[in-house]
Amino acid sequence: MSQGTLYIISAPSGAGKSSLISALLKDNSCYDVQVSVSHTTRAPRKGEENGIHYHFVPVSEFKELIKQDAFLEYAKVFDNFYGTSRLWIEGMLAKGIDIFLDIDWQGAQQIRKKMPHAKSIFILPPSREELEHRLNARGQDADEVIAKRMAEACSEISHYNEYDYVIVNDDFNVALMDMKVILHAERMTQNKQTRKYHDMLDRLLAQ
Amino acid sequence: MSQGTLYIISAPSGAGKSSLISALLKDNSCYDVQVSVSHTTRAPRKGEENGIHYHFVPVSEFKELIKQDAFLEYAKVFDNFYGTSRLWIEGMLAKGIDIFLDIDWQGAQQIRKKMPHAKSIFILPPSREELEHRLNARGQDADEVIAKRMAEACSEISHYNEYDYVIVNDDFNVALMDMKVILHAERMTQNKQTRKYHDMLDRLLAQ
Repeated sequence: MSQGTLYIISAPSGAGKSSLISALLKDNSCYDVQVSVSHTTRAPRKGEENGIHYHFVPVSEFKELIKQDAFLEYAKVFDNFYGTSRLWIEGMLAKGIDIFLDIDWQGAQQIRKKMPHAKSIFILPPSREELEHRLNARGQDADEVIAKRMAEACSEISHYNEYDYVIVNDDFNVALMDMKVILHAERMTQNKQTRKYHDMLDRLLAQ
Repeated sequence: MSQGTLYIISAPSGAGKSSLISALLKDNSCYDVQVSVSHTTRAPRKGEENGIHYHFVPVSEFKELIKQDAFLEYAKVFDNFYGTSRLWIEGMLAKGIDIFLDIDWQGAQQIRKKMPHAKSIFILPPSREELEHRLNARGQDADEVIAKRMAEACSEISHYNEYDYVIVNDDFNVALMDMKVILHAERMTQNKQTRKYHDMLDRLLAQ
């Protein structure tokens, strides 16, 4: 069986990353794809389910997992810990399942070091104007909140060139197809195909 | 503008390489793709056109082109020279056109050294039985001719693991889609996208 691929997916807020990942997971008729569910010590928000949106754990348990080197990466954001489980991801990859890891550029840098075979995809908005529009359209936030979001988005975007693939999310369905195409192409790389067609290749090469 | 990609395509006889390339060239609604036309010193066969199937040149001219380092690779096969024009390929790639280079594993090794950004695709038949069937189905050849073809095919196949991608041509339309998917995915690699979206990225990153 072929090993799955770990996909690191990053994007600025407003690029449509979450919607693209959701759509891909719903439409996985051709692909075995799952999204990595992070561990966190923060409290669940309304509608969030344990094991679906996050693995919600107490701080003591999180610190114990850090000691066990159970995380591919973890970070503390505003007093809360967030981490990515190495064991779960490695188990899924061994089953031939591709894993999506929704993470920012800093987490991506950590993951690349620990999982050098991971492929990374950066999703861009189609223009600065559209990004501003999308960040504004989210609610009735104050100008300075929006300006702060825009600055954060630009900071994230400045790392786009650390990624293997770049998708521009102008038309949602085109961007979704782009993601599927990347997954499909990666499954045709020689290493994956050698594992998948191991027996057939043995017979072809028998003298 | 984004630089085109040079695709090295190899396969044993009977894998369907030529049919796949032809179909891809006819169906390039989405892609700028052309096939590299080799130079040769052999005489044209019936139906072969100069500049389409080969650039037919005299031996003296071929040797002059060798001196000028005009070939990415060349080889002498049964008293005839065959070569791949560096100038033509580099010109097409600069225009953003992807080039298909239909070549055996030995030529592929030479090309990889001179064009390290080339991507290579190996096309496999779906089984040994089907390969034997396809090699037999070609005509009324003697058993020993077929056995020789089979040995040559196995020899070519033994180099499949030197290639970036492997396509198994079981269902022709699936294999054709596989090739298109590889071309599409390569166009989303960060280097290509950075060139394509250069101006947009400048605006996104402006403070």
